[in-house]
Amino acid sequence: MAVSVNSPYFSYGPFAKRVPLALHETNRQRLCEHLRSLPDVPEGAIVVLKSGETTLRHSTDHEIYFRQESYFHWLFGVLEPDCWGAVQVDTGNSIVFMPDLPPDYAVWMGTIHPPEHFKDKYDVSEVHFTKENHLKIVQVLMGKSPSVLLLLRGLNTDSDSWTIPADFKGINQFELDYDHLFHVITELRVFKTDMELEVLRYATQVSCDAHKKVMKKIKPGMVQYQGESMFCHSCHFDGGCKITAYDCIGASGENCATLHYGHAGNPNDKLIKDGDMCLFDMGCEYYCYASDVTSSFPVNGKFTDDQKIVYNAVLDANLQVQANTKAGVCWVDNHRLAEHVILTHLKQAGMLKGDVDDMMRAHLGAIFLPHGLGHFIGIDTHDVGGYPPGVDRPVEPGLSSLRTARVLQPGMAITVEPGCYFIDILMDQALESEEQSPFIERAVFGRFRNFGGVRIEDDVIVQEHGCELLSVLPRTVNEIEVFMGQKDGN
Amino acid sequence: MAVSVNSPYFSYGPFAKRVPLALHETNRQRLCEHLRSLPDVPEGAIVVLKSGETTLRHSTDHEIYFRQESYFHWLFGVLEPDCWGAVQVDTGNSIVFMPDLPPDYAVWMGTIHPPEHFKDKYDVSEVHFTKENHLKIVQVLMGKSPSVLLLLRGLNTDSDSWTIPADFKGINQFELDYDHLFHVITELRVFKTDMELEVLRYATQVSCDAHKKVMKKIKPGMVQYQGESMFCHSCHFDGGCKITAYDCIGASGENCATLHYGHAGNPNDKLIKDGDMCLFDMGCEYYCYASDVTSSFPVNGKFTDDQKIVYNAVLDANLQVQANTKAGVCWVDNHRLAEHVILTHLKQAGMLKGDVDDMMRAHLGAIFLPHGLGHFIGIDTHDVGGYPPGVDRPVEPGLSSLRTARVLQPGMAITVEPGCYFIDILMDQALESEEQSPFIERAVFGRFRNFGGVRIEDDVIVQEHGCELLSVLPRTVNEIEVFMGQKDGN
Ligand SMILES: [Mn+2]
Ligand SMILES: [Mn+2]
Repeated sequence: MAVSVNSPYFSYGPFAKRVPLALHETNRQRLCEHLRSLPDVPEGAIVVLKSGETTLRHSTDHEIYFRQESYFHWLFGVLEPDCWGAVQVDTGNSIVFMPDLPPDYAVWMGTIHPPEHFKDKYDVSEVHFTKENHLKIVQVLMGKSPSVLLLLRGLNTDSDSWTIPADFKGINQFELDYDHLFHVITELRVFKTDMELEVLRYATQVSCDAHKKVMKKIKPGMVQYQGESMFCHSCHFDGGCKITAYDCIGASGENCATLHYGHAGNPNDKLIKDGDMCLFDMGCEYYCYASDVTSSFPVNGKFTDDQKIVYNAVLDANLQVQANTKAGVCWVDNHRLAEHVILTHLKQAGMLKGDVDDMMRAHLGAIFLPHGLGHFIGIDTHDVGGYPPGVDRPVEPGLSSLRTARVLQPGMAITVEPGCYFIDILMDQALESEEQSPFIERAVFGRFRNFGGVRIEDDVIVQEHGCELLSVLPRTVNEIEVFMGQKDGN
Repeated sequence: MAVSVNSPYFSYGPFAKRVPLALHETNRQRLCEHLRSLPDVPEGAIVVLKSGETTLRHSTDHEIYFRQESYFHWLFGVLEPDCWGAVQVDTGNSIVFMPDLPPDYAVWMGTIHPPEHFKDKYDVSEVHFTKENHLKIVQVLMGKSPSVLLLLRGLNTDSDSWTIPADFKGINQFELDYDHLFHVITELRVFKTDMELEVLRYATQVSCDAHKKVMKKIKPGMVQYQGESMFCHSCHFDGGCKITAYDCIGASGENCATLHYGHAGNPNDKLIKDGDMCLFDMGCEYYCYASDVTSSFPVNGKFTDDQKIVYNAVLDANLQVQANTKAGVCWVDNHRLAEHVILTHLKQAGMLKGDVDDMMRAHLGAIFLPHGLGHFIGIDTHDVGGYPPGVDRPVEPGLSSLRTARVLQPGMAITVEPGCYFIDILMDQALESEEQSPFIERAVFGRFRNFGGVRIEDDVIVQEHGCELLSVLPRTVNEIEVFMGQKDGN
């Protein structure tokens, strides 16, 4: 879809990507069309969402940096907290309610603009200011004589948390429906529009540029957080991406075996030693659209033979999965494909013995790859819609960690992130297992204790006959060694 | 207090500051001593605090980066969420309860350590793991036969929010006291120990080094967030300070008149133009101890005459306040001093006319300096204890924004941050005021519309006969012009 130069757009400053606000108008149209097709949704229905709220840290006045609630962002693109948004399903008429700001806002926070300003800023049909009594919301919505308010109630299948439906004082004067909106909007979020794909492409490109900077500048004797800091600086300074899509995983050496390394109890604070592999799982977001990219490489720029074994196993899995990522493929089969490729490589390296299909039946793949092969990506890093009604979560080891078990369709955005890790507890488990231990060559297997692990994570868009790779990085052993060996141009 | 090399300490990696854990043991001793002196606290009392909790963003599985709750950090220094801490008042015996981690934590988050590991890591007397039924907490505390559990309930005077007292399943089997702990611990937090001052010095030093990098590298044509990004990178990469103590205010030009610029509705996304003043209010934290530093300077490194007028007014106020910051001085008087100095300068510049004391009585100072002169700083940026029982908040304009009205005492850490701003709504208010408008030379005053503003913010420690300046930066017009004119060494 072409966007004229005069169309309203969002941009974080003059240098970062311009995003047409038609992105949200398109989403509103898609939503209304879908809702109108449902026999259970009567004429005159109005969708109502609540934005994220201002939050303070514990009892203090420290404001947590505000990032919009994802469903609200998808539908409205409003940047401020403490708002409501409504869409009349019959007409697509869009209404945003914003807090009526106190006069001293002008002293502390900035100009108090009139509603007209926000109507233009967000390209919606109506903007109203509402006080804490919410009378304005009731009054405006009553004026539309809605048959029913459609509210968002549903379970996020990654967190097992429920969405909090919009609420305001006086809402009980309306007919309320909690049953229809969530599944419709969640399913629409799975399929990205062209305008959304453009934002995903940008965020991923910014992340990849930052990963390359880190690969060029990291060296033995640095601390993991210094890699993290270089990444964040590049995303923010060069790309206008102020926040990351998730906490940076800046692992090195044996820490690479900790899948979600880098949290408060296990921070990125270790020295990177010569000979270590790095596993940097770091992605920025732009305009609330996430990227999620992992690069694995030796900190000194040269792979050892053992590092090559593991790395090439994962790379081959990544490439074979990408080659098999297209409409009609079940994601569970791609996960199995990744396991098969990795086990085959480990067998070739003499770490495993026996038939690879037998290993698969013994769930040996989940020892090395205990997380899911990939997840939808969008406004959330682990984007919604992985398990709609009718799609069940697999129960087998490894597969049970999959965040989706769906058949791929064009317009889905998904990560391809096979990994191979040497995790003490799982290695011990395999060695003690009657089913799994016969496949293991103990001496070779033991050599990889404390190896850590490798993950190669790309972001792709599913197409009819293939997929588009968003995350272009030096990936082969040779590409990485050449790239890291070049003098840094800047 | 000297700390032996073998004493347990915290450090964020090998390069950042080592903080002895004796910091917390000292705080526990101070707390116990004080509580034992209170006739209302019986023998056998036990203090119980709850740590901060893991929080997810809205309905998603996106974890908000965990930063410990401030009272809990002061007493225990535990980095992880979802814990409880207890101190036996009679003996100082310290007990930490941590969540009993599920086996798959070892796969996703890292090694599951035994309680002994955390006992050493945090240098406390006992560590116990507790399941969700909290039976272990009840059992261990019952074993101490406490007369009463002292819990934290009180009002934060900056946020007007209440602390949330510790709670656990079965707590009602104990005698509970919500009345004594808050005031005692809050008052102790006001007076920093030597070990706490060392951390404040470090965080402030890291922030100042970062401010200097920004001053060297910023130039016209950059976007505000690029200054923010350079600041954060320097704090993190060079100082091991991963997070800022508050959202960066990266204002330039007229945005400098927005006191809390840089939030989601008014982000640091504007182009910095040649001739603009910058107002960068940015501070990092280390080990939960905050710094809060503002530098104001012309982006091109050369002050205009008008910029010099406003800058020198604020600098003179800053220096005169610092010279008058010592034990026995009431902070309200220092705020008035800052107003007086600024008004005097504006009169000398021909913007105001008449007697400065008359201007003060007409509250003209609050037109230019609508925020408080400074606030306690510590584990919170706006640290607690500004208004203990018996100290009332002033009601006059400007003074009513003060976060403390206390008489200074040695060991207090406080910011000195006079400012002079040209805020449309306040300028209009002054021009329309019968009381204030006679002091205003309209032509000169009008020349400063859209000027923005200047703030010079330092962090100091109050001493008996003066104060220690933590934030050393180029501050005079000449120092700034020379510093910014030098070629960047790195
Ligand atoms: Mn991922
Ligand atoms: Mn401050």
